[in-house]
Amino acid sequence: MDNAGLLTYLSERRLEVDRLLHSYLPGPKSDPPLLHEAMRYSLFAGGKRIRPILCIASCEAVGGRSVLALPFASAIELIHTYSLVHDDLPAMDDDAYRRGKLTNHKMFGESTAILVGDALLTAAFTMMAEKGLASTISPKKILRVMLELGSASGSTGMVGGQLNDIEAQGKEDLTLEKLKRIHTHKTGVLIRASVRIGGILGGAGPKKRSQLTCFGEKIGLAFQIADDVLDVEGEEKKLGKPVGQDESKGRCTYPALMGVSRAKKEAIVLVEEALTEIKSFGPEADPIRQIALFIIDREK
Amino acid sequence: MDNAGLLTYLSERRLEVDRLLHSYLPGPKSDPPLLHEAMRYSLFAGGKRIRPILCIASCEAVGGRSVLALPFASAIELIHTYSLVHDDLPAMDDDAYRRGKLTNHKMFGESTAILVGDALLTAAFTMMAEKGLASTISPKKILRVMLELGSASGSTGMVGGQLNDIEAQGKEDLTLEKLKRIHTHKTGVLIRASVRIGGILGGAGPKKRSQLTCFGEKIGLAFQIADDVLDVEGEEKKLGKPVGQDESKGRCTYPALMGVSRAKKEAIVLVEEALTEIKSFGPEADPIRQIALFIIDREK
Repeated sequence: MDNAGLLTYLSERRLEVDRLLHSYLPGPKSDPPLLHEAMRYSLFAGGKRIRPILCIASCEAVGGRSVLALPFASAIELIHTYSLVHDDLPAMDDDAYRRGKLTNHKMFGESTAILVGDALLTAAFTMMAEKGLASTISPKKILRVMLELGSASGSTGMVGGQLNDIEAQGKEDLTLEKLKRIHTHKTGVLIRASVRIGGILGGAGPKKRSQLTCFGEKIGLAFQIADDVLDVEGEEKKLGKPVGQDESKGRCTYPALMGVSRAKKEAIVLVEEALTEIKSFGPEADPIRQIALFIIDREK
Repeated sequence: MDNAGLLTYLSERRLEVDRLLHSYLPGPKSDPPLLHEAMRYSLFAGGKRIRPILCIASCEAVGGRSVLALPFASAIELIHTYSLVHDDLPAMDDDAYRRGKLTNHKMFGESTAILVGDALLTAAFTMMAEKGLASTISPKKILRVMLELGSASGSTGMVGGQLNDIEAQGKEDLTLEKLKRIHTHKTGVLIRASVRIGGILGGAGPKKRSQLTCFGEKIGLAFQIADDVLDVEGEEKKLGKPVGQDESKGRCTYPALMGVSRAKKEAIVLVEEALTEIKSFGPEADPIRQIALFIIDREK
């Protein structure tokens, strides 16, 4: 798969995810219209859909059909979007822009943004239950997937990571070890879960599932490092938000702790290690291999 | 079942729900400790557990064993508690007290309270998936229950009702019809779902399920009216929060629209109608009948 092939793959998968989310969510005029308009505002704000695409590619990497993973991949994007809307709130990271657009609370007000996050999170699990009932995958496996995603995104996973991140902000004594733990929970855990869930849905046995888990963990961390580096080196126009925000807000990042060039090297090593984990996989794993490389080579 | 019998029934069921929630949630020292302490603070703040008890009683009313409904009933309480934590936030209803204690954000700060709500909501679905996998109930039926609960609590249900409620506050032109619609969504929908889900888990056929749905809808509305009346007439000490808050905050309530005595009558008529819906049920429905009467005859 060459670079053009990867871009086609990414945009096709992205389209499938967007189409399903469009058709699943209540229309922008459904009652209450303000809530549904605001939900769609953040959900269709130009996200890269990295997590759902990883989930689908992981399903394919173990020989599963992409259509099996699609509803669950889309549910992961609902969870990711809810977490962004809540993280941007004034009481949290207090961000005004994301992906080149005003954040949800800047556009619709704080109370609406809180409810938008709640509704997106609820929609994620509702969608899995509904699509699961209509799927050829066994209901038992769907419950397992829901348990995986719930554990990854709850108090001991993503939500816990966000709390640790807020508590660490502005602290002087943050070590690299602590930063890794925060990021493993805040960002890594959902990326890891996306890959794992794709594997489960694709019918991976215990060995491949464990290899995918290690793969997912490593690219999850690489993704966050790349994000931090982009905040220092990226172009504002491509990123859709001001650069240098992490530093000005006293956020803990890899470049701040180890310098930009060491952070970049660290990300490359992580992706290499990730690829080694799945080297026994066949050519059907090529998309997920390419996505891993893309993660550290993107401009936004 | 006499009054003492009802009180025993309520306290026994409450204990079962509390015990399961205690054992399911990560301990208060689990990482991050602040988050888990704050989750437990609101979850074990003396809630009446009306929704889970209704769910269990509804399961029993159609001949099911209470233990089947317990995990799902407890998940409903997690959803109810998350909604209270978020509703109390400064950007929403901005309440300082609930059940005689400081609200979550007053105690732990706004960012923690937002994350507490997110974590409780996630825990509800995670718990249903996990307990569902260990249950004798078919995974398919569990997915149906999760779909019911997700639909009831999402953007077209409870969350949508909360948005409509906020939008309606302080408006002069609120009609009784609009108020009913708001309350049907905001409070009624979760109470209705609790009763429906109990029926599904207890193995109710289509007819009994439909009767329980009507029953649940009517007592859900009666419950909200009784709540509004208590805000006017209740005792501050028993309620655990200042009375008269609805009026001072310009909230739309039944007593404000129709007067206290008409509101009380309305609640009584609703409960009578609710009881008529399930009059063909046997003595195993006695607890749920008593709870319906209790709903309009409580002091907090």
